[in-house]
Amino acid sequence: MATIFTKIINGEIPSYKIAENDQFYAFLDINPLSKGHTLVVPKREVDYIFDLSDEELAAMHVFAKHVALIIESVIPCKRIGVAVMGLEVPHAHIHLIPITKESDMIISNPKLKLSSEEFTSISEKINRAFVERFEK
Amino acid sequence: MATIFTKIINGEIPSYKIAENDQFYAFLDINPLSKGHTLVVPKREVDYIFDLSDEELAAMHVFAKHVALIIESVIPCKRIGVAVMGLEVPHAHIHLIPITKESDMIISNPKLKLSSEEFTSISEKINRAFVERFEK
Repeated sequence: MATIFTKIINGEIPSYKIAENDQFYAFLDINPLSKGHTLVVPKREVDYIFDLSDEELAAMHVFAKHVALIIESVIPCKRIGVAVMGLEVPHAHIHLIPITKESDMIISNPKLKLSSEEFTSISEKINRAFVERFEK
Repeated sequence: MATIFTKIINGEIPSYKIAENDQFYAFLDINPLSKGHTLVVPKREVDYIFDLSDEELAAMHVFAKHVALIIESVIPCKRIGVAVMGLEVPHAHIHLIPITKESDMIISNPKLKLSSEEFTSISEKINRAFVERFEK
C-alpha cells in the first residue's frame, strides 16, 4: 500500500509544495516546529533512509541543502536544522527546521497552529524563490 | 583559532574515535543521548554544514551512513537518528543517535553518564567493526 508521502507526491493528498525534482519532493510539515518546517522525501518509496543507495542518499542531502538555503532566505531564522527520525511514517524523510536556537530542535516542543492561508503563503514564497534560483 | 573539533581531529584533545577517512572524523559524543551517540565532523573547518560544497556534503552523509550502519550493528537500537543543529560549536557536525523510539531524539533529554571504561569499550567495538567492514 502506498505511504501517505507517496500519496502526497502523487497529488492524491494535497500538500503545501516547496520544491521538486525527478527524485525528491519537498513540502511543508503540517505540524511544524517553526514556520517553514519542511519535509524532504524520496519519490522512491524506501522506509529507512540508510536503505537508500549511497548515490541516492547523497543526492537527497544535496537537494535538501538547496531547499534549506532557499528556506533560510525567506524565513527569518539563524540556520536550518536537520533531523531524521523515521520511526513513524515508513517512508524516509528529512526534516528541515528553521531555528534561531538549539532548543528550537526539541521535537517534543508544541507544534505551531497555522491557518491554511499561512501555510499557502509560506509555501508559495519559498517555492517561488526555489524556482527562481534553481529552475530558470 | 582552531575549534574544539579540530583539536580533537588533530589529537590535541583526546576522543573516543569511531572512524576516520581523509575527509571526515567520527567520535563518541561525551554527553550522549544514548549509548553509541556519535558526532561526524569534516576535517576541513567549516562552521555551517550548508557552507560545505555539494560534493563535500554528499561525501559527509555517505560517510555518516557507513558509520551509522556499523553503530547499529553493534549497539542495540531500532535505527540511527540523524540531527544537525550547529549553533553551539562553530564546526559543522552530524549527530548519529541510536534510537528505539522517536522521543529518544529529544535533544533536551538528560544525557547518559558513562565511565571512561564504558566509552572506551563502546568506541573500540564500533571502531573494530568499521575497520573490519571498510578498511580490509
